[in-house]
Amino acid sequence: MSPHCAILEELDIHARFAFAIPVFDQLTILAPGLLGGSVAKAAHARGLARRIVIWARRPEVRLALREQPWCNQVFDTPTEAVQAANLVVLAAPVEKIVELARQVAPHLPIGAVVTDVGSVKTELCRLCTAAMPAQATFVGSHPMAGSQKTGWENGSPALFEGRTCFVTPLAQASAAAVETVAQFWRALGSTVTTLSPEEHDQIVAHVSHLPQALATTLCSFLAQKNPQWRNFAGGGLRDTTRIAASDATMWIEIFQQNHGEVLCALNEFQHELDGFSAALAHRDWDELRRRVEHGKTYRDGFPS
Amino acid sequence: MSPHCAILEELDIHARFAFAIPVFDQLTILAPGLLGGSVAKAAHARGLARRIVIWARRPEVRLALREQPWCNQVFDTPTEAVQAANLVVLAAPVEKIVELARQVAPHLPIGAVVTDVGSVKTELCRLCTAAMPAQATFVGSHPMAGSQKTGWENGSPALFEGRTCFVTPLAQASAAAVETVAQFWRALGSTVTTLSPEEHDQIVAHVSHLPQALATTLCSFLAQKNPQWRNFAGGGLRDTTRIAASDATMWIEIFQQNHGEVLCALNEFQHELDGFSAALAHRDWDELRRRVEHGKTYRDGFPS
Repeated sequence: MSPHCAILEELDIHARFAFAIPVFDQLTILAPGLLGGSVAKAAHARGLARRIVIWARRPEVRLALREQPWCNQVFDTPTEAVQAANLVVLAAPVEKIVELARQVAPHLPIGAVVTDVGSVKTELCRLCTAAMPAQATFVGSHPMAGSQKTGWENGSPALFEGRTCFVTPLAQASAAAVETVAQFWRALGSTVTTLSPEEHDQIVAHVSHLPQALATTLCSFLAQKNPQWRNFAGGGLRDTTRIAASDATMWIEIFQQNHGEVLCALNEFQHELDGFSAALAHRDWDELRRRVEHGKTYRDGFPS
Repeated sequence: MSPHCAILEELDIHARFAFAIPVFDQLTILAPGLLGGSVAKAAHARGLARRIVIWARRPEVRLALREQPWCNQVFDTPTEAVQAANLVVLAAPVEKIVELARQVAPHLPIGAVVTDVGSVKTELCRLCTAAMPAQATFVGSHPMAGSQKTGWENGSPALFEGRTCFVTPLAQASAAAVETVAQFWRALGSTVTTLSPEEHDQIVAHVSHLPQALATTLCSFLAQKNPQWRNFAGGGLRDTTRIAASDATMWIEIFQQNHGEVLCALNEFQHELDGFSAALAHRDWDELRRRVEHGKTYRDGFPS
């Protein structure tokens, strides 16, 4: 029996699930923000861990966390927090995750599985995997969930329900470790898609980072024209620009981390937009109609 | 007293409004779709006309309209429908409005005010004004309200509440006619902004037609990459692309009508997007942050 199997049990209370529910002796969450806080609250609400252990960087946060009903123990250092963990979730901002993985690696117990919630995966998964000791396995995750709010206080036990969670193992990760991580997210209510870190980064560059770049650029453009025009915004402008109000620092980090794929998606999009402009400039209404209808057909096919 | 003043009365029931409410003997709506149907329902609900008269192109629609409680009379021809009208609303698709104005012009009574609901104004207002006989006045309107649904059946008496309505008179329109149209939209619950047709077309090219072109192009682009990726759409992609599902024919007509202004806005936007791409390509994170924060500040300033 692999060490991973030892931490999986099927409980009666979870019998309605079509898959084995992991119940961990200890779930450790490091540096919880909105996502990490939501993982803790959701795991507590669903009874997925006998003990939820947390480390946070700031002393006043550690103090506040000690008062939370969904937190069993708070440690002053990340290395102490992981020492008896079956599953470790690295919930720090994406550019701090590798550093945290390296710091805790020597202290991980035999059979520990380590995951994260970072939104860019290729380099992160390579470096975190390389940092692991022989007795532990890293398997990256990216839950496609969030909020305009930040901070563990705003986390919700329902945040992952019905959302996609990408699980992005490298080839050397054991099937059991991958399954442990995938089942954990399923148990939190997510639909899991397993793919390579590279494929993940290409997909999110297109369906998440490119729309963000467009919303940001539409806003920075309109701000230069006449900011008062925003008073005439209908639902269309309101919706297309909503995400431009997201946390700026988080997005700079994502653009830095997924630099190559975002640039590639942007360049290809600009080519498509040149085609739209050219059709308009040449009054080629057939071509313009083809593009508008093509876009509409695609959008009409979104899952509701 | 001008003929326009004769149709304005201040009723006790409307005393809570800070402006005179127009109550028309006859409000005529020609070719109602979603907007025209909503005008009729809203005017009926708010008691703004003693008689609401409608003409629709298709006989089966005229038959159905005769059954509606918010419609007092249905005529078989537009010329009959306008003969006793104080206010005429041309609610046809934008490329049919001028033709309709020319058709009814010789039959308008003394003092009639004619408006429309078209979303592009420069050429339309010039041609409709030129078509008017001496005894009637054209003053263009564009209520910034809509729905993904179409047709008068889906019209709502609340559609205009809290929305911007542009009123776009030419210089030769009398102040009284402009005020009649502006007060009508205010009485339907809209906030009225009066400006020239040219300024209107420049503004909507930026706050409405450009976002539509971007949503459409993002969708036609992603459709070519891998349509299955839409299954991973988070709230961001969902919101930024929502309007790409709008009626294709309506949008082709708007792009045709506002061709010059949309092309100009698109070209300037492409320049801004080139700047974003260049900052990313050169890893100029300070410049990228400046753009992201500029966009965020603009979006944070949207009226809530």
